[in-house]
Amino acid sequence: MSEELLHHRVRWVRDGAVARIELASPDTRNALDGDMALGLREATARLLVGAADGTLRAALLTARGPVFSVGGDLRWFADTPDPSARIGETAAILNEALYTLAHIPVPVVSVVHGTVAGGGIGIALSADIVLVGSAAKLRVAYTAAGLSPDCGVSWLLARRIGLARALDLALTNRIVTADELHRWGLVSRVVAQESLAREAEEVVQLLATGSAPALAATKRLLRAAAEPPTGLKTQLDAEAISIAELLGGPDGREGLSAFLSKRAPVFTTPASPAAEAPSPPLP
Amino acid sequence: MSEELLHHRVRWVRDGAVARIELASPDTRNALDGDMALGLREATARLLVGAADGTLRAALLTARGPVFSVGGDLRWFADTPDPSARIGETAAILNEALYTLAHIPVPVVSVVHGTVAGGGIGIALSADIVLVGSAAKLRVAYTAAGLSPDCGVSWLLARRIGLARALDLALTNRIVTADELHRWGLVSRVVAQESLAREAEEVVQLLATGSAPALAATKRLLRAAAEPPTGLKTQLDAEAISIAELLGGPDGREGLSAFLSKRAPVFTTPASPAAEAPSPPLP
Amino acid sequence: MSEELLHHRVRWVRDGAVARIELASPDTRNALDGDMALGLREATARLLVGAADGTLRAALLTARGPVFSVGGDLRWFADTPDPSARIGETAAILNEALYTLAHIPVPVVSVVHGTVAGGGIGIALSADIVLVGSAAKLRVAYTAAGLSPDCGVSWLLARRIGLARALDLALTNRIVTADELHRWGLVSRVVAQESLAREAEEVVQLLATGSAPALAATKRLLRAAAEPPTGLKTQLDAEAISIAELLGGPDGREGLSAFLSKRAPVFTTPASPAAEAPSPPLP
Repeated sequence: MSEELLHHRVRWVRDGAVARIELASPDTRNALDGDMALGLREATARLLVGAADGTLRAALLTARGPVFSVGGDLRWFADTPDPSARIGETAAILNEALYTLAHIPVPVVSVVHGTVAGGGIGIALSADIVLVGSAAKLRVAYTAAGLSPDCGVSWLLARRIGLARALDLALTNRIVTADELHRWGLVSRVVAQESLAREAEEVVQLLATGSAPALAATKRLLRAAAEPPTGLKTQLDAEAISIAELLGGPDGREGLSAFLSKRAPVFTTPASPAAEAPSPPLP
Repeated sequence: MSEELLHHRVRWVRDGAVARIELASPDTRNALDGDMALGLREATARLLVGAADGTLRAALLTARGPVFSVGGDLRWFADTPDPSARIGETAAILNEALYTLAHIPVPVVSVVHGTVAGGGIGIALSADIVLVGSAAKLRVAYTAAGLSPDCGVSWLLARRIGLARALDLALTNRIVTADELHRWGLVSRVVAQESLAREAEEVVQLLATGSAPALAATKRLLRAAAEPPTGLKTQLDAEAISIAELLGGPDGREGLSAFLSKRAPVFTTPASPAAEAPSPPLP
Repeated sequence: MSEELLHHRVRWVRDGAVARIELASPDTRNALDGDMALGLREATARLLVGAADGTLRAALLTARGPVFSVGGDLRWFADTPDPSARIGETAAILNEALYTLAHIPVPVVSVVHGTVAGGGIGIALSADIVLVGSAAKLRVAYTAAGLSPDCGVSWLLARRIGLARALDLALTNRIVTADELHRWGLVSRVVAQESLAREAEEVVQLLATGSAPALAATKRLLRAAAEPPTGLKTQLDAEAISIAELLGGPDGREGLSAFLSKRAPVFTTPASPAAEAPSPPLP
């Protein structure tokens, strides 16, 4: 198990097939400043390396301190002659990290244990599976500072909870409880605060011992279906190609064989194209 | 009333303006094998004929035995030198059936009374109105066998319940209850198990006695709006054309006349282009 | 404060930075006839003027009488030699109004206090924030008269509540309660009937005193994300450009300055391109 602090803000732990990324700046309530953006980009670049060399099978994203993230560090953005240039550069770095989280062929689980606001929402919800503690709260917050959403927040809200709810949250900045987040489908599960870490660990272990090519193909297909332009016919074709490729590969064969002999399957193929498994290209 | 067993797996009943399709292989828990795929394609081809000759006005899709469908028949897929080719061929046949259910100009109602998994989900949810018994359960199941979704399951999940919930179900294969399915909007209604057959019959009779061109145009418009690329402006135009055509046709005239004379309308126009009614082309 | 009755059907009140539009034909239960369509188009044209000259900051849409709107005035559509032409012309006028509500760079709040049906649904849900009274009910209603949806109803239903629920409502015309509307995410909030007017006023005042360019950019980004074809990458880029522009403008500077000096921000920039603020073009 190796551990490192990236750009003073992001803790990186590589623990076998699992990578653990932690927003590790509780003093700034994990505000997104330049170092946090660089740290996140560095961490997600390492995820790409792990996926490519076939050693990584799942990633976990958490945050330290009482707050998940308050979003952009307004103090830091203001502390320059050209705040607009600074936020543009920072957004470009964060967007690379967020795009990687969403499209890397390895499942990513995030754990939102406390308040999340602004760009922190985009980071938390870029994961594939989002576990939220029952005490967590969300506030979009941008317009209260005369700003508009970044970090994919406009896309995530508009696509996941319908425009009527999304615009209410984004235009009025009203605070949303964990229970509402779950009922509305913005997150995957709401979990009692004391069980959150344990349930996250169970999900990560389940994913890390699952069939990496199957998880990668499934993530890719669902992500593609949520991004236009993908109609039913296109998706039906993409699905048929993927399932046939998998069934011709080692994990499909192992899945079938385990099913037929009524034993648990053992999946060892990495998600990576470098390895033996079929390589689903990113969309 | 005519009744037939198609490819040993699918019961076809034509009952006046209503077609009843039943997955009829309880011994295999309605697993999707080659015969089931051929039976479903044959049944949906008959729906197309009935819609074209103007005699069909509604279709009902049910399943026999305790399970709606466990999805792909892994045993059958394994029983060939090239399982990958077999699943590809079978998916192509099923995709034709699923595409027909989604786009035929006649409303389709499905009734999920028990467990549904894998590709069975795609079949159940391809219907326009999906009634689910309170005891039903859903499990995506693909990745547990080293596979990725087919039968439109990735598209249906990603589009209907948001990526956070969809990816959770597809990557972890956790079991979902009927109540969750309904709260999340993956299905139309959850119905107490003992009322399920009666409520399905009521819905089918309502549809079979409704205005066939109006139901066809409405189904077409909503399906088109759920498939990109269709923006608000395109859809506003398509809607305006459709409602004006209908109002100029026999059912629109009957609807108006019944409204003005405070009587119930009697709609007899078929959905079909062969008949007098305006013919909304499939998207 | 100026007040006017537009085309005998729509009350227009301009009250400082707020425009109030009221469907004001309780005798016809606010049915959509030619005058109502013209009145709505005239009112939304005035919103455009107010947004362009920088004096308008928020709009409120309500209805008089016990019913919000029963939808199209079938009696009036029938009272002409060519009902089909009349509904086509009326839909074209209403579509202009609806498109303006959805895309004008000023937030629009609607209040649905009673029953809403048919095209009335499209008007109510074209607003950005939709408040619904606990006693309100919704019925799609078109197919019952042999017609198909207009006023964007097919698009709004298909995009916001998933096809399974949307097709159920549109094909069977079953009545939906305010509680279901809210749980399904078709509207922003359900409010106890006696608190509805007060909560609407609070939301409108919050928006009218907010940062107009930030609200305009946020509305534009979320609306764009809900209309294909906009993928995550496109939206991430659009977001980054918008937030950087805003931070370089007066409201972003005021937001930062207020944050740093721990005081409430005072936003006075209009949404309009004629004014100093950055002008987000309509999509």
